[in-house]
Amino acid sequence: MTICALATAPGGALGIIRISGPRTLEILSHIFSKDLKAAAPNTIHYGHIVEYDAVLQHQVPLDEVLVSVFRAPHSYTGEDAAEISCHGSRYILNKVLELLVKNGCRMANPGEYTQRAFLNGKMDLSQAEAVADLIASSNKATHQIAISQLRGHFSSELSRLREQLLKLTSLLELELDFSDHEDLEFADRSELLDIANKINNQITALAHSFETGKTLKEGFPVAIVGRTNVGKSTLLNKLLRDDRAIVSPVHGTTRDTIEDTIDINGVTFRFIDTAGIRQTTDEVEQIGINRTYTAIGKARIVLWIVDAEPTTEYIQEMLERCKDKSLIIIRNKIDIQAMSDTFSISNSRLKDFPTVEISAKQGTNIDKLEQAIFASANIPELSEQCIIVTSARQYHSLVSAHNNLSRVLSGLESGLSGDIVSEDLRLVLDDLADITGQGRILTSEVLENIFTHFCVGK
Amino acid sequence: MTICALATAPGGALGIIRISGPRTLEILSHIFSKDLKAAAPNTIHYGHIVEYDAVLQHQVPLDEVLVSVFRAPHSYTGEDAAEISCHGSRYILNKVLELLVKNGCRMANPGEYTQRAFLNGKMDLSQAEAVADLIASSNKATHQIAISQLRGHFSSELSRLREQLLKLTSLLELELDFSDHEDLEFADRSELLDIANKINNQITALAHSFETGKTLKEGFPVAIVGRTNVGKSTLLNKLLRDDRAIVSPVHGTTRDTIEDTIDINGVTFRFIDTAGIRQTTDEVEQIGINRTYTAIGKARIVLWIVDAEPTTEYIQEMLERCKDKSLIIIRNKIDIQAMSDTFSISNSRLKDFPTVEISAKQGTNIDKLEQAIFASANIPELSEQCIIVTSARQYHSLVSAHNNLSRVLSGLESGLSGDIVSEDLRLVLDDLADITGQGRILTSEVLENIFTHFCVGK
Repeated sequence: MTICALATAPGGALGIIRISGPRTLEILSHIFSKDLKAAAPNTIHYGHIVEYDAVLQHQVPLDEVLVSVFRAPHSYTGEDAAEISCHGSRYILNKVLELLVKNGCRMANPGEYTQRAFLNGKMDLSQAEAVADLIASSNKATHQIAISQLRGHFSSELSRLREQLLKLTSLLELELDFSDHEDLEFADRSELLDIANKINNQITALAHSFETGKTLKEGFPVAIVGRTNVGKSTLLNKLLRDDRAIVSPVHGTTRDTIEDTIDINGVTFRFIDTAGIRQTTDEVEQIGINRTYTAIGKARIVLWIVDAEPTTEYIQEMLERCKDKSLIIIRNKIDIQAMSDTFSISNSRLKDFPTVEISAKQGTNIDKLEQAIFASANIPELSEQCIIVTSARQYHSLVSAHNNLSRVLSGLESGLSGDIVSEDLRLVLDDLADITGQGRILTSEVLENIFTHFCVGK
Repeated sequence: MTICALATAPGGALGIIRISGPRTLEILSHIFSKDLKAAAPNTIHYGHIVEYDAVLQHQVPLDEVLVSVFRAPHSYTGEDAAEISCHGSRYILNKVLELLVKNGCRMANPGEYTQRAFLNGKMDLSQAEAVADLIASSNKATHQIAISQLRGHFSSELSRLREQLLKLTSLLELELDFSDHEDLEFADRSELLDIANKINNQITALAHSFETGKTLKEGFPVAIVGRTNVGKSTLLNKLLRDDRAIVSPVHGTTRDTIEDTIDINGVTFRFIDTAGIRQTTDEVEQIGINRTYTAIGKARIVLWIVDAEPTTEYIQEMLERCKDKSLIIIRNKIDIQAMSDTFSISNSRLKDFPTVEISAKQGTNIDKLEQAIFASANIPELSEQCIIVTSARQYHSLVSAHNNLSRVLSGLESGLSGDIVSEDLRLVLDDLADITGQGRILTSEVLENIFTHFCVGK
């Protein structure tokens, strides 16, 4: 079936309509002023989209367009394909889609182009998922992870793991062949255990990267807490304003969500529940306000802002609440309080936490604070080849692979027979194959789950 | 100077970045994985946009893209040009634009591509203005006017007028040559007057079309008026709901403005100030509410909705208010009042107005009402070759041409000397030349006025 969809957001100077499938060029020839059935691949053709007018009884032009022609298998989907570059009028774009449907196209489902690319062997499933991530990427970190995955670095890593697993399998078969030589077994098993452990470590590291990947995608949650009038709102506004002042060359760019987020060194930090904190500031005498604790609970980084020596109880309470968080102590109002003034943080329980002295009001040391926040996030160095799992589906396959491999390990340790261990090894191989989808028969349900999260036109 | 801009709205699966200017392919070669300096025209190239990473000290990929190459003079602008089809991530699009600027491009001004197309003789000014109209077109009528103008039908009409004016000029010169033959003059002048009159009629007709053009662009203003509880809101909701239920194949299409508009036969009708009318319904006993009158004042079509015989004073008042409007009388609530019932419109002063009997509540005859509204708008038949002026700039040139031609006419009638009449004729030719910009030296101010209304990237 030949499919069509608008691939750009409506409202620009141009709108691109994508067509893919065996009848692409035949259908196009019905609505285009030139016959493209014999058009060479990767060529661009100027002409008109025309529509038959029943009243005038002849064809009338709908738009002046450029048509790009792609030929199977050298296209995104691997099929014959075309892109029509129209004027960005909604009326025109709707009309062209209508004409395509009238002439035999079907409107594409979300992600259907990428799904076809996968089914035609142009990319594996992890790369397909990277396409959606790449389109959604809004900063350097998420972009780098997505482009690395799209370029197949994760796929290569998985195929390396697969090779090691196959090696393990063949060693296990060797062990079976020599199973009558009892003295050989021990040596083999220790080698096998060694290999299996290494693979397991690598799989575990990949699975662990999901937490980072997920947080990078969603933004690191940060809570700003502190007593009334300590300067929480002033600080938040200063952090946000500095970031929002960045001028974007993309005309009309607006944030998708008017959430309180800032980007530091290409990573998004998201201030959670700050409205709640702001609303409660005037009631906070004791910090024991539930909403603040909820914010701390959701945060990974807590900015504790103080303008005086905290009481022992307050310190006790905060350290208790933040014990699994990255805590940064902010001493605010340095513009009105000299360092050597009556107040300085003397409690020894706080001395190991990063401390930044700022003036939120005057914007002093906000850059230092940003770098402290970034350091607290403890983000692994992201290079163009970094592998960080961002898909829950991939994560679950890795967890399953880890669990099955753990059974392999204990089987090897407990001297379980090689053919039983082999069974579990096969499951590990299947788990990894699920990630790329290669060599696996995937149900339409599985595919649908993956591609419904895509936008239409990709 | 080589320019670049995002040509699509941000937020889609794809984003297209346009480059145009002499250095296009050289600049592209710095940021693209292939050297395109010798690329053939109208070809598409797959590769990566790459960025030099100062830390890693080598190039890293930013996106997998397709680059379309166009060569002067066979491009939209008439210059060397290219389009980069990127993944639609804002991060990526911003980055690519940044890279282009870093390598020597300048961000394009609104409409600068079309301005270059004009300056390079690819289209005239009236066609350039049609490009903006085409992108903004939201229904069949505005689309048809824009595409007709883009395809040069208005330009052809102007060049026909220009030929006739030149003929007039040469006849006037002939008259001057024979000016010593006094008996010849009278005959010549009547022929000249005849030609000038014909030209003036055509120019006047074009100028008059601006009112239609402007209204088609903005939507025909319609007011619904009537006494309390007569069913105004019910009718409006019924009209709007029916229209909004139309399913658009462009995913995510939303109306730019949440105005109360409906499309009938491809023409937009705009319900003005209806909120005001709705708010005042509970106070309206006498219809003499100022807001309603304001609505009538702004309307071109007035829907007067009644559910009982209007009083003589009410009729007097309405006819006075609507004397330069298209008035449609709507008899509502036919579901509860039989035609033969106590009420029927018997006042002879109303019998010549179109009357539609409806049930707003049950949706009866809403389609008939829509056709009555469309008929009242008195829209000339729009064909693919229709010429309707939609630009205020073009309108002012036509009015000026008309005024100067009127002086030509009175000069010819009053026997003014041929060389003085020629002066005015030259002004008419200049006025028409201003519309297309051909053969005229245009100040940068004039050009700026035209192209600032364009979107960036076109």
